[in-house]
Amino acid sequence: MLRTLSSLGENAFLQHLLPTLATRRDVLTGAGDDCAVTHLPGTDFDFLFTTDPLIEGRHYAPGTSPAQIGRKAIHRAISDIAAMGGTPRWLLIGLTAPPDFPLARIRAIYRALNQAAARWQLAIIGGDTAQSRDFALHVTAIGTAPHRRAVLRATARPGDALYVTGTLGGNWRRGSKRHLTFTPRIAEGAFLAEHRFARAMMDLSDGLSTDLQRLAAASDIGAELHAAAIPRTPRATLEDALHEGEDYELLFAVPPAQCSALEAAWEKTFPLIPLSRIGCCTKQCTLTLIQPDEKHTTLSPNGFQHFTK
Amino acid sequence: MLRTLSSLGENAFLQHLLPTLATRRDVLTGAGDDCAVTHLPGTDFDFLFTTDPLIEGRHYAPGTSPAQIGRKAIHRAISDIAAMGGTPRWLLIGLTAPPDFPLARIRAIYRALNQAAARWQLAIIGGDTAQSRDFALHVTAIGTAPHRRAVLRATARPGDALYVTGTLGGNWRRGSKRHLTFTPRIAEGAFLAEHRFARAMMDLSDGLSTDLQRLAAASDIGAELHAAAIPRTPRATLEDALHEGEDYELLFAVPPAQCSALEAAWEKTFPLIPLSRIGCCTKQCTLTLIQPDEKHTTLSPNGFQHFTK
Repeated sequence: MLRTLSSLGENAFLQHLLPTLATRRDVLTGAGDDCAVTHLPGTDFDFLFTTDPLIEGRHYAPGTSPAQIGRKAIHRAISDIAAMGGTPRWLLIGLTAPPDFPLARIRAIYRALNQAAARWQLAIIGGDTAQSRDFALHVTAIGTAPHRRAVLRATARPGDALYVTGTLGGNWRRGSKRHLTFTPRIAEGAFLAEHRFARAMMDLSDGLSTDLQRLAAASDIGAELHAAAIPRTPRATLEDALHEGEDYELLFAVPPAQCSALEAAWEKTFPLIPLSRIGCCTKQCTLTLIQPDEKHTTLSPNGFQHFTK
Repeated sequence: MLRTLSSLGENAFLQHLLPTLATRRDVLTGAGDDCAVTHLPGTDFDFLFTTDPLIEGRHYAPGTSPAQIGRKAIHRAISDIAAMGGTPRWLLIGLTAPPDFPLARIRAIYRALNQAAARWQLAIIGGDTAQSRDFALHVTAIGTAPHRRAVLRATARPGDALYVTGTLGGNWRRGSKRHLTFTPRIAEGAFLAEHRFARAMMDLSDGLSTDLQRLAAASDIGAELHAAAIPRTPRATLEDALHEGEDYELLFAVPPAQCSALEAAWEKTFPLIPLSRIGCCTKQCTLTLIQPDEKHTTLSPNGFQHFTK
């Protein structure tokens, strides 16, 4: 049988690919985290880079409004910078479109891109347009963080408490449009990095079960989650909160001694944003879900993966 | 009639779009040049950013070898950094593919991407994979230049001599594969910037006539070209050299007092790379082609534009 991307899946493909990529000494963290991190000698900051495609029919339904398309394209890219505790600065936007795509719609999408950029004080500094059968926006976002202060995925330790911001699930199943209207956690991510509350962090794009598995694998740890502690969006099931994806909330690991300071500071700084302690990191490299009746079950990554059916 | 991208064309679309893009103070040059240029206070360098898609069936034929696809994807992106006189450093690569795309072919393309990156001492620091009907590589390249030394398009002056590197034409018409095998002028671009020979510069991707028109418009000048002085690839016609596109050579403007120093230094530094003085910049904002019989004709941009038929 011919092996294809869809038979292998995105995770397995990337796992094979990432260690092979060309690198150089000024790269502190290469591909595989939310952002790559680079540093040039003589500066007191690091650069953060991420690139994210938004493809019509894959990442949103064809009838979606231009305002929502532009907003989502930028928000999901800078959510990766939030996940490192960085400050987003610049955007490059590569657009592909079929030749018969209505100009008025493209202009409306660019108005939305500009509005989202202005809201976060970002500049759209470049891009390219090319023909393709699919309409897509390929957004590269660049940000900065103080030198060596970007929060990685790979630095969680056994015993750390696990937290998430906001509520999970209810983003696209049953007609929900929440995946188009989320707000990236820019200020929250920067706060968690600045005060060193987060020892490891990532954003939730493919579902808690899949993304926690990635954080755990990168940190060489496991995790226990309390089902009852996982914050659900109204009408979302536990299944939705664990596996649906497109939450764009922050998942992060906090040293146990920091938890009460974090919770007090959070309450003061972000009184309207829920913060939930959902479990802890373990030495044993498995993911366990603890039910309200104390029954332990294995949590399988079951979120969205490109190239699987 | 519904206005579409193809009825308007890429140039007109970008001309309308570029001035509307969100910006911020740390952006020295925004979208519209070969690269965007940014600067952060306290550093003695600028950052250069460019993004370029390579789409199967648009930028190369479906049967093209993986080695040539990977090579072209990186070389055309870093050619934009060469065009500013910068040093390329990092790459982000967004891949889109249909789900039935053979894994072996993707792996071979990544091997070629890594080889090209290694050849130019670049790191591939990130990327993303997503499903689309078209196979495409969206390459973002990031480089640096000493502060305020990146060479822009907009700074040519009347009286400057116009030069091109290499030979033009013969890149894809009549079955030529040269558009897959060109070498970006990294060392040459850096040399021209470092010694301040080039007052304005760009790379030739869409044909001399189209690209010169862009340099002239950006600099608010015109130009006269001598048809006999335009260096042609063997078997390329004058038409090919003017309009075919995909040359990836450098086009640059040199202050008249610098020409003999440039030519002497070039001969010593790049004895194998042709350098041709093809004309000069004029105050009058038109493009003129001077035939060997001294007949003057208007040169119309007639190179490749996306979204035109």
